[in-house]
Amino acid sequence: MLHLSVVKIGGNIVDNPEALDKFLSDFADLKGPKVLVHGGGKVATKISDALGIETQMVDGRRVTDQETVKVVTMVYAGLVNKTIVAKLQAFGCDALGLSGADGDAIRAHKRKVEKGAVDYGFVGDIIGVNDELLVNIVNSDIAPVLAPITHNGSGQLLNTNADTVASAVAVALAGHIPVRLVYCFELPGVLKDINDKNSIISFINKRTYTELKQEGVIADGMIPKMDNCFEAIEEGVSSVYICHADNLLGLLEGKSSVGTQLKA
Amino acid sequence: MLHLSVVKIGGNIVDNPEALDKFLSDFADLKGPKVLVHGGGKVATKISDALGIETQMVDGRRVTDQETVKVVTMVYAGLVNKTIVAKLQAFGCDALGLSGADGDAIRAHKRKVEKGAVDYGFVGDIIGVNDELLVNIVNSDIAPVLAPITHNGSGQLLNTNADTVASAVAVALAGHIPVRLVYCFELPGVLKDINDKNSIISFINKRTYTELKQEGVIADGMIPKMDNCFEAIEEGVSSVYICHADNLLGLLEGKSSVGTQLKA
Repeated sequence: MLHLSVVKIGGNIVDNPEALDKFLSDFADLKGPKVLVHGGGKVATKISDALGIETQMVDGRRVTDQETVKVVTMVYAGLVNKTIVAKLQAFGCDALGLSGADGDAIRAHKRKVEKGAVDYGFVGDIIGVNDELLVNIVNSDIAPVLAPITHNGSGQLLNTNADTVASAVAVALAGHIPVRLVYCFELPGVLKDINDKNSIISFINKRTYTELKQEGVIADGMIPKMDNCFEAIEEGVSSVYICHADNLLGLLEGKSSVGTQLKA
Repeated sequence: MLHLSVVKIGGNIVDNPEALDKFLSDFADLKGPKVLVHGGGKVATKISDALGIETQMVDGRRVTDQETVKVVTMVYAGLVNKTIVAKLQAFGCDALGLSGADGDAIRAHKRKVEKGAVDYGFVGDIIGVNDELLVNIVNSDIAPVLAPITHNGSGQLLNTNADTVASAVAVALAGHIPVRLVYCFELPGVLKDINDKNSIISFINKRTYTELKQEGVIADGMIPKMDNCFEAIEEGVSSVYICHADNLLGLLEGKSSVGTQLKA
């Protein structure tokens, strides 16, 4: 059955020109309708530093003040997004970059700060995906390339987690066509032992996920990521893959099984 | 007759948040299909300075080396483009930002350097506009918002003059629908006396243009701009207007005649 692939590429790959080129060449070759969601990478921190804007990270997440949201908009929706789109065009894949503001692609609201909680500033929690817009673009044989920047409909741009953008887009499109969601990063999949790259867990379902959490194999930052994946599956996404950026084509086209597949 | 409006907004307005807001609110209210092309503004120079990249201007044009093309991509296609798009969404106008790479909207080649001439670096001369893409977007009641960044089809982004982007887009769309091209900036039109803002020349045609050049009223940097305008008219654009950003609606909706109209 024809699936639409929503592929998310992590910031560590975005930061490495050779790894990014290899990945984009593979993404261009991927058959069927497709959407790419990219992370930000570290350039935003470099630009912030140069502009004298202090980068504040809490639990690995960027605190986004009024000046920082300008920098992430520049870097994610400008430099990174257009570099990726121009390269995909060179690899023969017609691509069109979008922030959440473009065509009202992704609407969000500024995260409310609970009493005593960290104020992450201009960070967006997604409230709606314009599935009609994305379907129209995909139906024109163009791959939308989404930057992790959303808007609130009142003129404010918001920094938004790229993993969440990918799952929200996958869920929204699953109402139109079967969707597979693929998270590509610098590791070969979900590992039993973080120090052993050969210890990939090939399949995880809701039952084995509970066991892996109890055993402490899946812990810390991986838990919200995995919860996110299972939520996507519950909301209609056919399957979710987590794999190394180099292995996108192998995994999706059945030539290799190196990676983790999540199923209901 | 229904016209499509291609409106170009200059960098001096882009740099002024209040003037930009006023202009975008008017653009949102403009009836009929429309396309916005924006200039860059001075933020790119500020960012370049902060990053220690020397800004080199020759005859008022930016010399664009490998690092500078990254900065202009960030600022023009990222910060400026997405700020404009988010604001238009807030004003009730569905808008979608594009660089020339997006959907292969505008293809260019890197300007060849003649012997002894200035090498402007990664500067693009337009070779093709994807009119089909733009027509599809406009037909979905979405206003394309074009940043003055193009690509060469081989992965290279190129800095491109926004006036030229506007006229090339207007000419390409004139094959589909009658087009009027409007240049909005910080002056009320083409002036007989640059020091007298009331000395607006209301109509210029090819014959009076020749006279105005002979009299020295139109000189220097205005000549290539005006040549560009008359070229657009010769290639099928119905009419060209040059007016103050504040006067877009008044002029196009016939409430005011403050501005300059160019006709064959």
